[in-house]
Amino acid sequence: MTFRARHLLGIEPLSPTDITSILDLAESYVDLNRRTIKHADALQGMTQINMFFENSTRTQSSFELAGKRLGADVMNMAMAQSSVKKGETLIDTALTLNAMHPDLLVVRHPQSGAVNLLAEKVNCAVLNAGDGRHEHPTQALLDALTIRRSKGRLHRLTVAICGDIVHSRVARSNLILLGKMENRVRLCGPATLMPAGAGDLGVEVYQDMREALDGADVVMMLRLQKERMDGGFIPSEREYYHRWGLDAEKLSHAKPDAIVMHPGPMNRGVEIDGTIADDINRSVIQDQVEMGVAVRMAAMDMLARNLRAERGARASEGVYV
Amino acid sequence: MTFRARHLLGIEPLSPTDITSILDLAESYVDLNRRTIKHADALQGMTQINMFFENSTRTQSSFELAGKRLGADVMNMAMAQSSVKKGETLIDTALTLNAMHPDLLVVRHPQSGAVNLLAEKVNCAVLNAGDGRHEHPTQALLDALTIRRSKGRLHRLTVAICGDIVHSRVARSNLILLGKMENRVRLCGPATLMPAGAGDLGVEVYQDMREALDGADVVMMLRLQKERMDGGFIPSEREYYHRWGLDAEKLSHAKPDAIVMHPGPMNRGVEIDGTIADDINRSVIQDQVEMGVAVRMAAMDMLARNLRAERGARASEGVYV
Amino acid sequence: MTFRARHLLGIEPLSPTDITSILDLAESYVDLNRRTIKHADALQGMTQINMFFENSTRTQSSFELAGKRLGADVMNMAMAQSSVKKGETLIDTALTLNAMHPDLLVVRHPQSGAVNLLAEKVNCAVLNAGDGRHEHPTQALLDALTIRRSKGRLHRLTVAICGDIVHSRVARSNLILLGKMENRVRLCGPATLMPAGAGDLGVEVYQDMREALDGADVVMMLRLQKERMDGGFIPSEREYYHRWGLDAEKLSHAKPDAIVMHPGPMNRGVEIDGTIADDINRSVIQDQVEMGVAVRMAAMDMLARNLRAERGARASEGVYV
Repeated sequence: MTFRARHLLGIEPLSPTDITSILDLAESYVDLNRRTIKHADALQGMTQINMFFENSTRTQSSFELAGKRLGADVMNMAMAQSSVKKGETLIDTALTLNAMHPDLLVVRHPQSGAVNLLAEKVNCAVLNAGDGRHEHPTQALLDALTIRRSKGRLHRLTVAICGDIVHSRVARSNLILLGKMENRVRLCGPATLMPAGAGDLGVEVYQDMREALDGADVVMMLRLQKERMDGGFIPSEREYYHRWGLDAEKLSHAKPDAIVMHPGPMNRGVEIDGTIADDINRSVIQDQVEMGVAVRMAAMDMLARNLRAERGARASEGVYV
Repeated sequence: MTFRARHLLGIEPLSPTDITSILDLAESYVDLNRRTIKHADALQGMTQINMFFENSTRTQSSFELAGKRLGADVMNMAMAQSSVKKGETLIDTALTLNAMHPDLLVVRHPQSGAVNLLAEKVNCAVLNAGDGRHEHPTQALLDALTIRRSKGRLHRLTVAICGDIVHSRVARSNLILLGKMENRVRLCGPATLMPAGAGDLGVEVYQDMREALDGADVVMMLRLQKERMDGGFIPSEREYYHRWGLDAEKLSHAKPDAIVMHPGPMNRGVEIDGTIADDINRSVIQDQVEMGVAVRMAAMDMLARNLRAERGARASEGVYV
Repeated sequence: MTFRARHLLGIEPLSPTDITSILDLAESYVDLNRRTIKHADALQGMTQINMFFENSTRTQSSFELAGKRLGADVMNMAMAQSSVKKGETLIDTALTLNAMHPDLLVVRHPQSGAVNLLAEKVNCAVLNAGDGRHEHPTQALLDALTIRRSKGRLHRLTVAICGDIVHSRVARSNLILLGKMENRVRLCGPATLMPAGAGDLGVEVYQDMREALDGADVVMMLRLQKERMDGGFIPSEREYYHRWGLDAEKLSHAKPDAIVMHPGPMNRGVEIDGTIADDINRSVIQDQVEMGVAVRMAAMDMLARNLRAERGARASEGVYV
């Protein structure tokens, strides 16, 4: 294993070998029923704090389960009702938490870059569980593992990422990861939901779903993040579905064995036709959730090993931190 | 032990032998101080998710304690602030949870039948922690255990269930259980809070408390569920207490050794006189809470055993689920 | 060890020997990195319930971590959304919880005396995590441990407690503890935020920060509790900072090696200059948080030992409680 970092803040700093190491470790946790195997000694004696400044039942649960399956003491902090309300700054909140000496800090924050800022102030390992429009690295890793298990490889695939690109840290982390692993990435969505300069990202940009899906191995639909849309032109749901929602006809343009993905939660009949979402021959949406627990176990296990190694090295030098 | 089901969705599908098996196992967990005994190996390695779409500090805490005393990893999901808000359907939420491979799913939902629907979609064991006006099986089982410990038997007793019958899944599960065990059940309450057709349930229906309590062994008071009353005629609290609240005079019509029950939370001076609620010679209200933890331990332990047996059988056939 | 009480409700009932015992035990949990050491057997098999009627991410987290590091099953109850809303009284809520047989109950409540009232009704050990303007004993103990580690002793020190005294249970518990240990305590703050009769408490009362800090060994700043101010005259934040906020000039009046404390959450630029708060040569604010976990571990460990001893004694007499 070669992943030696202190934190997992994004896909950007990872090498292809790092990515493969995490996916291989995650895979080792999954049994024949795609259940994750309990390894209560991996994080034994360690404390994991989940600090969610944005609610996310799905991601928080996945991290909580992953930590518990590895034997960590897991504590959830509902930051919406926290000291932040009493006038405390993010940095002071982080320093306070740090002084409780957690080993792993899982953070979601509505502002891009907030998790990186926080990571600079603490002694523990920080995992980014999504920050603004920036990164959501464990989502990209679980998508990668799902693709690799389904297609047998994670390179030289054509992947179409479709929908609300501009608000999506999922899209951003995924296109970075897929690019690093030498896949062909296409983005497709309404012009108003496409980031400016998307064409410079080394990806192909489409507005027409049929063109974007033509010959694709993987069709990755995104959630329409209505809660982040302030002001800009938004098509009606019916119009959106008609042009960008995934239905059987549009999917027929992809390869016959193309898989369909969605990070959830889904708006059926808006982003995706319910029948396709439920088609176990095409949809790997449940697999994504399954792999989510495994990938988070792997990421936390690796960071915990690095932390132990770092602490051991410092202690042998007589330095206490 | 003969209880072989996958789920505990209600009292309706249980046989008298099933009921006795659960109560016997629950009893085995209770020590001389009526504390439950820790058996950390029973659910070792298993994951229990509490998914409450309605807040219930009391029931959720009881299930959480029960799971932890059996060694499960317990995760609470506050569904009020969940993906449901982001447009996800109940079924998709269930499928997502299922993909995280919990072993036990404890669900409370405001709609009758929602828990059964959900149970059809998942691979794990589902426990109904109350669904709409339908069932609340663990409440009926803990009431049954409380009665059995107090009266020495659970058959040929006269049980008066009094108050807000129409909104009460507690009343419904109790009258089914008590009927199966061959007790005489009486319902008493204002006509507006009595379900239509109550007379066809094999029970006696009263509006007068003195008649309903005459010769009763057990007086079970219900909570006035003001939050579920929309529109219909509701008496004032004073009037309600005067006619249906349990006071010493009304209780004097029951047998001299009759016990008094209430599922909580109580409205003192509305449903019940505070002195009676606190009278340790008559009231078994605290015992109900104590038995609640034991009964939930027993139910989860049995379902976990069934689940392990089922998984073992399928694995030996080479089928992975 | 001599601390033999059932509960930890305040500093008032503790002897100097009790205080020293708790601090010594807490110190034994702290390693060279000021991390607390895991002792999973200390509360093995025990259940700790955190019952916070006022939100406090900081204090609740500290108690939760402390319990988990000692191996307890920890359950948080969000009392804001509890049965209290359904008309249940505090006493009934307490009795219900008690019937679930927790071993340790950690309670925060907005009303002074509510925790003592509750402790009378339950069989378990109760820890006061702050009640109204009354007491916050673990805060005073963690402050004491921080002072003792930093100054090498906990007696014959001059301690200035500054700011919003009248609303502060932190100030109250601290001045009781510091007085018992034979320190010189000074209170300083605006007249409107000073309790009536403060001069009779055996402390010196100041309005001028320079006089209060003159020759002080410890400067303890308090949070301005705006949420508790109803009506009375409150200076503007700018005016408050000018007269009572801790800046370098005011601090220069204290001893050159004086330490600076704050219970958090801090309002930087109102109660304290940010540079001073971050000055690792003067500020022990992070140490306070670190010692918080250790002190809570010690308090719960001691109460658990007392509880076990009491139960053992009663069982040998054939009494079950």
